[in-house]
Amino acid sequence: MSNTIGRLYRVTSFGESHGRCVGVVVDGCPAGHRLDPEHLQTELDRRRPGQSGVSTTRREEDRVEVLSGVFNGVTTGAPVCMLIWNRDMDSTRYEELRWTPRPGHADYTAEKRYGGHQDYRGGGRFSGRITAGYVMAGALAKQVLAATHGIEVLGYTSQIGSTVAPDVLLDQVRENTERNPVRCPDPETAIEMERNILKARDEGDSLGGAVKCVVLNVPPGVGQPVFDTLEGDLAKALFGVPAVKAVEFGAGTALASMRGSESNDPYRIVGGRVETASNNMGGVLGGVSTGAPIELTATFKPTPSVSKPQKTVDLKTLEKTTITIEGRHDPCIVPRAVPVVESVVAMMILDHMMQRGHVRQVLGE
Amino acid sequence: MSNTIGRLYRVTSFGESHGRCVGVVVDGCPAGHRLDPEHLQTELDRRRPGQSGVSTTRREEDRVEVLSGVFNGVTTGAPVCMLIWNRDMDSTRYEELRWTPRPGHADYTAEKRYGGHQDYRGGGRFSGRITAGYVMAGALAKQVLAATHGIEVLGYTSQIGSTVAPDVLLDQVRENTERNPVRCPDPETAIEMERNILKARDEGDSLGGAVKCVVLNVPPGVGQPVFDTLEGDLAKALFGVPAVKAVEFGAGTALASMRGSESNDPYRIVGGRVETASNNMGGVLGGVSTGAPIELTATFKPTPSVSKPQKTVDLKTLEKTTITIEGRHDPCIVPRAVPVVESVVAMMILDHMMQRGHVRQVLGE
Amino acid sequence: MSNTIGRLYRVTSFGESHGRCVGVVVDGCPAGHRLDPEHLQTELDRRRPGQSGVSTTRREEDRVEVLSGVFNGVTTGAPVCMLIWNRDMDSTRYEELRWTPRPGHADYTAEKRYGGHQDYRGGGRFSGRITAGYVMAGALAKQVLAATHGIEVLGYTSQIGSTVAPDVLLDQVRENTERNPVRCPDPETAIEMERNILKARDEGDSLGGAVKCVVLNVPPGVGQPVFDTLEGDLAKALFGVPAVKAVEFGAGTALASMRGSESNDPYRIVGGRVETASNNMGGVLGGVSTGAPIELTATFKPTPSVSKPQKTVDLKTLEKTTITIEGRHDPCIVPRAVPVVESVVAMMILDHMMQRGHVRQVLGE
Amino acid sequence: MSNTIGRLYRVTSFGESHGRCVGVVVDGCPAGHRLDPEHLQTELDRRRPGQSGVSTTRREEDRVEVLSGVFNGVTTGAPVCMLIWNRDMDSTRYEELRWTPRPGHADYTAEKRYGGHQDYRGGGRFSGRITAGYVMAGALAKQVLAATHGIEVLGYTSQIGSTVAPDVLLDQVRENTERNPVRCPDPETAIEMERNILKARDEGDSLGGAVKCVVLNVPPGVGQPVFDTLEGDLAKALFGVPAVKAVEFGAGTALASMRGSESNDPYRIVGGRVETASNNMGGVLGGVSTGAPIELTATFKPTPSVSKPQKTVDLKTLEKTTITIEGRHDPCIVPRAVPVVESVVAMMILDHMMQRGHVRQVLGE
Repeated sequence: MSNTIGRLYRVTSFGESHGRCVGVVVDGCPAGHRLDPEHLQTELDRRRPGQSGVSTTRREEDRVEVLSGVFNGVTTGAPVCMLIWNRDMDSTRYEELRWTPRPGHADYTAEKRYGGHQDYRGGGRFSGRITAGYVMAGALAKQVLAATHGIEVLGYTSQIGSTVAPDVLLDQVRENTERNPVRCPDPETAIEMERNILKARDEGDSLGGAVKCVVLNVPPGVGQPVFDTLEGDLAKALFGVPAVKAVEFGAGTALASMRGSESNDPYRIVGGRVETASNNMGGVLGGVSTGAPIELTATFKPTPSVSKPQKTVDLKTLEKTTITIEGRHDPCIVPRAVPVVESVVAMMILDHMMQRGHVRQVLGE
Repeated sequence: MSNTIGRLYRVTSFGESHGRCVGVVVDGCPAGHRLDPEHLQTELDRRRPGQSGVSTTRREEDRVEVLSGVFNGVTTGAPVCMLIWNRDMDSTRYEELRWTPRPGHADYTAEKRYGGHQDYRGGGRFSGRITAGYVMAGALAKQVLAATHGIEVLGYTSQIGSTVAPDVLLDQVRENTERNPVRCPDPETAIEMERNILKARDEGDSLGGAVKCVVLNVPPGVGQPVFDTLEGDLAKALFGVPAVKAVEFGAGTALASMRGSESNDPYRIVGGRVETASNNMGGVLGGVSTGAPIELTATFKPTPSVSKPQKTVDLKTLEKTTITIEGRHDPCIVPRAVPVVESVVAMMILDHMMQRGHVRQVLGE
Repeated sequence: MSNTIGRLYRVTSFGESHGRCVGVVVDGCPAGHRLDPEHLQTELDRRRPGQSGVSTTRREEDRVEVLSGVFNGVTTGAPVCMLIWNRDMDSTRYEELRWTPRPGHADYTAEKRYGGHQDYRGGGRFSGRITAGYVMAGALAKQVLAATHGIEVLGYTSQIGSTVAPDVLLDQVRENTERNPVRCPDPETAIEMERNILKARDEGDSLGGAVKCVVLNVPPGVGQPVFDTLEGDLAKALFGVPAVKAVEFGAGTALASMRGSESNDPYRIVGGRVETASNNMGGVLGGVSTGAPIELTATFKPTPSVSKPQKTVDLKTLEKTTITIEGRHDPCIVPRAVPVVESVVAMMILDHMMQRGHVRQVLGE
Repeated sequence: MSNTIGRLYRVTSFGESHGRCVGVVVDGCPAGHRLDPEHLQTELDRRRPGQSGVSTTRREEDRVEVLSGVFNGVTTGAPVCMLIWNRDMDSTRYEELRWTPRPGHADYTAEKRYGGHQDYRGGGRFSGRITAGYVMAGALAKQVLAATHGIEVLGYTSQIGSTVAPDVLLDQVRENTERNPVRCPDPETAIEMERNILKARDEGDSLGGAVKCVVLNVPPGVGQPVFDTLEGDLAKALFGVPAVKAVEFGAGTALASMRGSESNDPYRIVGGRVETASNNMGGVLGGVSTGAPIELTATFKPTPSVSKPQKTVDLKTLEKTTITIEGRHDPCIVPRAVPVVESVVAMMILDHMMQRGHVRQVLGE
């Protein structure tokens, strides 16, 4: 009872890495939206495995199928079920690892959570492949947000290992992010990041990093204090993305060492409208949007699958042992995580736009 | 419809800073718990204003009243309504600030969210005073967690401004945290932190910081993937605490620059039980507890109320102006936030312990 | 975790019959509504005990106090906490009945549900007195519905024992219902009903009956199929009223023996608008309002408290025994239930009007 | 955001009558249940169209596919997605009816609810075919209830038109119900019911009726007062079944004319256990199970599709018109509704058994 998120735009995820499919049911998508199937597929392609040398070699076509909720190309207001079928699965190796939990993966916690009944093949329900469903639901949300309010959700890789991207302009993000395999809007940094990933891969290791996401054109006054804050709901959704271990808004952890006179974003009038002169708060105050861009950063831990030998235990004999993980893995998940972060952000922003009444259940009403 | 959090241990907050009271209704508290009213009051006292020179001079007795859900000293399973009455309110100054939103506060976003109908006195519903209700609900949760599973929730100030506490042992936390006004378990650091706060106050400024929280004795297998993860639910609750802008688990943002071979926590057998040799993951993998201590850090922005002049706008004339905020404010909210962080963490841990069936709806069954 | 109802207009009930108070927190009440405190009190007075010879002699002033969510007489969008204090309690008799569950009451099920920790005085949490909270939340909902859409919620007693009220015009309901102690809009039937109640009371017995409720001016298209239907949500709320055992819409159980050609409500055009020529469906089709009046009937079982001797068991000795219930009870709860039925209906209708976007979270936007 | 029901056993429905499929995602199904796929199919076959002369002639194989949540034949605790594909669709006739809403159907309310974007073919999302998904989710729930607590859910036709079944023994229900096309446990009554249906069909008309459902072996103490009562949740789910217009528990509407001394179910001791000597309350008091069989009755209105001419309006011209509905329809839906009623009842009973902790999230723990 934990695979659904959202209050009005409700996303229910299903499927496993090595099961028949991965999908999602979106309940509450506004009626009257003309679905753009190509955009949906394009978004999914951004997340697809096997895009470049920095990602896994698992090959999946990942063609999305829309099973319900769309009639004559337009959303009806009924639940939209979307899925992709799994095809290129290799489950053989997982039997060996059945009783020796891989450090950093959810093998051990899944065992404890589900009493040994979990599908352990390829991470099963805990696999990053599940996020394909998030991307479908997020792509649909992006379309509605763009069509109704011109809202744009821009994600990019801001850090890989110890390489941090410099500050960039939004136009750089729009132009450059998709032009390099690491999805960093600064071309020089991108080259360094890619080099670092390949080096880590060659050393049988992996890297972490961070994704920054900016949401433009959210009007002020969106968010539900005190417990369903914009930050809280975005963070909750982001922690549903495997490997995310920290979420920051605006200046984030750097705010700890600032002074109030410095961190407070002063108000000013520009073009007859109120705006903030800086954005240390990341576009949110009191859990509610200020009208400034919503800015957040999600930290991803390094991919737990490394080919170096690792210490673990045998759950049956309770003796220590060592495992090496072979096979097809992303040495750094961050580049493929960019569309996933955008997607969960878009889902939650649309949900809050609907809660606030800015997006109606029937478009055009 | 946003003032309730939790699925089985459901906390509904109500009240305003300058209204009649601040309170909470806890629905789903297990039946059969002998409420310790002194502990409840003690926890509330830790959050109370006017404790020391580093906090506001507003004087409130904050005596908790339990209005329902307890019979013969024992919880009945019915909703527990608890509240404190507001007494020492000074609302005069807020009329002047009515149309000039204070930077860093929620004045402007409240205006946009509630169409001008919000109670703007003392921050109204957005005031930190609301967290007194969280502390009541959290104290009750702590009692149940301790009584049923010996679970301990330990919070402390880990950073004030640029002063960061060194690594400390849990026994230091237990012994020292409540012995100094900044709630830092390292006595020397505490002195420096206090000095920094007083200095900022004297300069008409404020400081931010961070609270670290450790939860001991949560069994492995607690948490609900994929969307109601331990991290996600804890983060959502923490972002319900005013001024929190970042939430990290385990090594947090530092994981971005680690390698997988370094960040993965290896498993080992100790005393016949599986445990992790390190805890970079903060006790959570795949959204589920590993059995290691759950460790998290919440970053607090500097108190927005500074007495230095600040730029803002007049919402009626749409012209720029300058304000200075006088009155009784905490130059750094972090020390008083420690029990608040513990409280929301305790609430969510109990909720998840109940979801996992480790705490029953009727104790002793 | 079961004392809250509604999705956007969320009502959380708390309090016990012989505890300190009975109250409610309304989360999600639209901001900008000028609360009419007199109407609130008037509604509560309709439910108050001791109104006439047909009701209990417990004397309670039941003055409502609004503790939060209203500022300068207007709702702010923050939770509205309202309560009445309990005063005229006589708990002595309940100790005797502690281990001999009263037939028809929830004594035995409360024992099983809460493991013996329930407040058993006066029915505790299961008492009809809890519905005072529903009336507060319902009165507020009625005010918003009337102010924004002219929606009227009209309840009346349609049956007491075997006496069934004839069909009446809405104007009769408006004029007559509050003029007699049984709240029946047909004056002659009212006299018979009252006589029957007094007769049953004198015989140490009690009567059941039914309340009919009509909601006018709900626009077509309100309701959320397939699971949050208007009927489903109304019924769920109605079964939250103690003693309700059946809920019917439109022609209700009589539909079982009708033919489709007879039960289908034909469409016609009146004044340029679509309407139905009959209303066997009670204003709901497919879970969604048709625009016709929403009509429902709730059946109330006879008051379980009768002074005749009743067979029960001693839960400690597991032996059979006999009890007689003395004290202050309503020989027929139906007349006092009328405002309660109206209230839960109003709550749910407002919730659905908000879900459909017809009532905004900020009025006047 | 209205296609999900249940708190811990959460069922999300999707699909349309003439879309690609009809299905369901069950989130929260306990881990460790060995799924019986044959039982699943058998249950679905009970609901399938084209079973006999009393049902529609639409021919669908309705082979259920389980897409997720089951591994090695056992539930994993992950969401269980199940669906059937639509094949024998004939959508041509619906274009003609596009602007002339059929009386008694949801055509007009769907138009108003979804702004004209609804899939209007074959009732679309409002079709009874949607209940195939309910049956899948209900069959799974039945299996878990039977395996863990021997709980049995027995539904049968208790009324068709004005023909009412006499009181029957449970063994008659078990033996006879599936032996006749109307699912009435009394063979003689069944013959009369069948005759009535065929007569109505031949006259171009349709009949209503009622389904009674009994649930055995639910322990006392299950249910969540005050708003998530057993009755309330069961009723809400039942009103999610198309054509249900009344829901009664125990003696239901007959309680209105009973006296308390008669309606109260006395307690007695049988075999050392407390039980009630009668069951007018239908096994529920105060929203909580008494341990007696849970008994309820759902009234179904006559099938709205009748071939007699009906008055309606043209929504485009706003002029009156007449329609005749041809094609494949059930002259009485009640017999096929029996497994549907059982299914939604089983779903909610399992949900409440889980809420009360009687069924664990991991079976065998």
